[in-house]
Amino acid sequence: MIGRHRHLLSLEAYSREDILQILDLAVTMKEVLSRPVKKVPSLRGKSVVNLFFETSTRTRSSFEIAAKILSADALNWTASGSSVSKGETLLDTARNLEAMRPDVLVVRHAAGGAPSFLARHVACSVVSAGDGAHEHPTQGLLDTFTLREKLGTLEGKIVAIVGDISHSRVARSDLHAMTKLGARVRFCGPPTMIPKGAEALGATVHHELREAVNGADAVIMLRIQHERIGDPLIPNTREYSKFWGLNVRKTNEWLKPDAVILHPGPINRGVELSSDVADGPHSLILDQVQNGVAVRMAVLYLLCGGSGESARAKEGLTP
Amino acid sequence: MIGRHRHLLSLEAYSREDILQILDLAVTMKEVLSRPVKKVPSLRGKSVVNLFFETSTRTRSSFEIAAKILSADALNWTASGSSVSKGETLLDTARNLEAMRPDVLVVRHAAGGAPSFLARHVACSVVSAGDGAHEHPTQGLLDTFTLREKLGTLEGKIVAIVGDISHSRVARSDLHAMTKLGARVRFCGPPTMIPKGAEALGATVHHELREAVNGADAVIMLRIQHERIGDPLIPNTREYSKFWGLNVRKTNEWLKPDAVILHPGPINRGVELSSDVADGPHSLILDQVQNGVAVRMAVLYLLCGGSGESARAKEGLTP
Amino acid sequence: MIGRHRHLLSLEAYSREDILQILDLAVTMKEVLSRPVKKVPSLRGKSVVNLFFETSTRTRSSFEIAAKILSADALNWTASGSSVSKGETLLDTARNLEAMRPDVLVVRHAAGGAPSFLARHVACSVVSAGDGAHEHPTQGLLDTFTLREKLGTLEGKIVAIVGDISHSRVARSDLHAMTKLGARVRFCGPPTMIPKGAEALGATVHHELREAVNGADAVIMLRIQHERIGDPLIPNTREYSKFWGLNVRKTNEWLKPDAVILHPGPINRGVELSSDVADGPHSLILDQVQNGVAVRMAVLYLLCGGSGESARAKEGLTP
Repeated sequence: MIGRHRHLLSLEAYSREDILQILDLAVTMKEVLSRPVKKVPSLRGKSVVNLFFETSTRTRSSFEIAAKILSADALNWTASGSSVSKGETLLDTARNLEAMRPDVLVVRHAAGGAPSFLARHVACSVVSAGDGAHEHPTQGLLDTFTLREKLGTLEGKIVAIVGDISHSRVARSDLHAMTKLGARVRFCGPPTMIPKGAEALGATVHHELREAVNGADAVIMLRIQHERIGDPLIPNTREYSKFWGLNVRKTNEWLKPDAVILHPGPINRGVELSSDVADGPHSLILDQVQNGVAVRMAVLYLLCGGSGESARAKEGLTP
Repeated sequence: MIGRHRHLLSLEAYSREDILQILDLAVTMKEVLSRPVKKVPSLRGKSVVNLFFETSTRTRSSFEIAAKILSADALNWTASGSSVSKGETLLDTARNLEAMRPDVLVVRHAAGGAPSFLARHVACSVVSAGDGAHEHPTQGLLDTFTLREKLGTLEGKIVAIVGDISHSRVARSDLHAMTKLGARVRFCGPPTMIPKGAEALGATVHHELREAVNGADAVIMLRIQHERIGDPLIPNTREYSKFWGLNVRKTNEWLKPDAVILHPGPINRGVELSSDVADGPHSLILDQVQNGVAVRMAVLYLLCGGSGESARAKEGLTP
Repeated sequence: MIGRHRHLLSLEAYSREDILQILDLAVTMKEVLSRPVKKVPSLRGKSVVNLFFETSTRTRSSFEIAAKILSADALNWTASGSSVSKGETLLDTARNLEAMRPDVLVVRHAAGGAPSFLARHVACSVVSAGDGAHEHPTQGLLDTFTLREKLGTLEGKIVAIVGDISHSRVARSDLHAMTKLGARVRFCGPPTMIPKGAEALGATVHHELREAVNGADAVIMLRIQHERIGDPLIPNTREYSKFWGLNVRKTNEWLKPDAVILHPGPINRGVELSSDVADGPHSLILDQVQNGVAVRMAVLYLLCGGSGESARAKEGLTP
């Protein structure tokens, strides 16, 4: 359980305390990752099934590594080559998997709400690994963790999220987690790519990159989907880069000297970020990847009924 | 060893005692599945290779989970992306895998007899996970286990198997296992889909669903293969459903009140079974999936030289 | 570490002593493979990522099995379905994986030098599992191990390597390892398939199979790539087989009675080798597969900081 939750389907539904419970445990998990022997027995005999209807080796691997470090068994079930191509319904697939008695089902699906639908019908815990343009809660948690680690706190910090906000489940999860921890979030992108009612969600809206990043403590550059290129407002990647991308000049002139830059990856180098910015001193992109494993370890641990302080010590979770 | 068998290639070759040995052990294995820590050390240091020439995430996952719960290592080798696409022969593939010293090779192949062929040429144990229209022995075992669990015994029970019997490896394995345990099996389907000589195998043949399910204790609805649709006798799925499918009305009017319904999955909802029947009180479909893991655990355990009673206690196999 | 090396990128860069360190440890590893319980705790808590940009179930499985026997976690990351198809650069992929903290990255890539490039940019150890036409070092090690095991020593032995030498990473790795251990290597193939400067690498060059295998202690038949068929000098596989293949007659007439035959697999039966030769008394092809696991266990063990003699005993690595 995370707070009163048996599932992790969205950060919108999570309280500040729920989020802090995960982030605080992730600090411990990150320490495990730095040990020569990266293995603790916490989830021995538990099993995690990755049920991915969209391919994502990165996110899937992150969950798989997180499970294995905790000694859980991990099983991958991908849509291609599965009964899904034989016309089986989403629910039948999930129920069949569930009958094999996993403890956690990690679900990625192109349809927003698919993980929530499954959670209502299976007995095990469900974690969304990204559903449509709805949410990508573990990405929101790892981004928040990364900022808290670097900035000390989110309280009063300004975070600019730049790109195709409308279609971004990352932007949505970031917004919910970061505002709950006290940050002020700015959305920035072309008008067609900002969802209606963004202000009602607690974000301010900007249509000039320079204005959006001015004074920001952190800038999160979203990945532009190739299928969006050709949109009247994004005729090509060069145009996108010109208006919404960061290069060294803009970074040096427009950003605060100690501002940090995040990107959920994979980067389109030369589009959202020039290579020297992606690999430069402001970038926390590789921290994000490592923190993703730590945060997912914390989520799996808590949902599998992870134990209290004294048990944690026995499991090797306290140094 | 299962009885005198080093392999599991067909239930036709297995005796009543061989089958009972597996089913009895599967009861213990199912109990392991219900524990909070679903892991016993029985097959530590053993390895199971899944060699699938036809895709089947469900069956492959079931074997993989069974292996992992017993602490064996599981390795998946699928035809696509393997040397098979480089023109390697079946035997070369199997011998190469065998040289890596697995303890059990689980084989699915479109050609009936492929697992038996391999078994004659490799040193490790071979388990068929379905070969052509020949047999699918672990499906036969899990169906039989499910019926025995629910009905108490197979002795004297009537089991109707409905659909494309001719092309069904499930029907064949069910028939062998269930008749050996004392059940009377009825085959039901359009004349072109009943194999010649079905009676010689011990089944009675019916061409009316109503007649076949009348008085039956269990009805096993086979999956209709999409490639069979268009056959003169099955012009479309609506026709199939009308003559050979079960809906709530037929179930209530034609079946005994306590009859149970099985389906090997994945279901074509609205074709073999209407959704309210598939999810209704007669259905044991999800039991089948869970029992599949238990039965496969028993098979792997016995073929890997699983040990006697006292060792079992030590391995955590007795509660 | 292997000698002073943190990576295994080529055998050209390895000294005789480095190679012997691996081969000697592989003898121990092979003994582990023959035990009923094929599992030692040596690399518990270590993780090995297989990053394959070319499909190769055989080599990938060999590394995966080697990792699991040593109790390491193994994770497979294949190019298809990964961010690579989203246009991510090789380096971004590797850095992302590395941020997940593996201990060893096993890389196969169509471009020669790709593993070396990665090794300069990541913190973990990198093992080449074959890069372009450059090297396939673990294949070279397993071939050398297999010959040493059978012939007692490589010192003064004659090894003929037959086929498309120019495009063979296997030939290159074999040459480096075997000459360092004292063997004399002959390259044999059509003139267009012998690299310029082969003699400078230490090989003698032959264009007649009969001459090349005359007096040889070992013959390594390379796999002909199907895409090479149609080349002016190889109009079809029958022609190839006639000039560069071995059948029983040639084997009996031309080879020494105790000569051994190797092939990296998968074999094109009837092309490089007739079936009766591939499965005959000279063939060590299945030994090669098993030795491949042993050699890869040794490599992973050493690169993960495998320990000294007394620790090895504790890990179950000494019988």
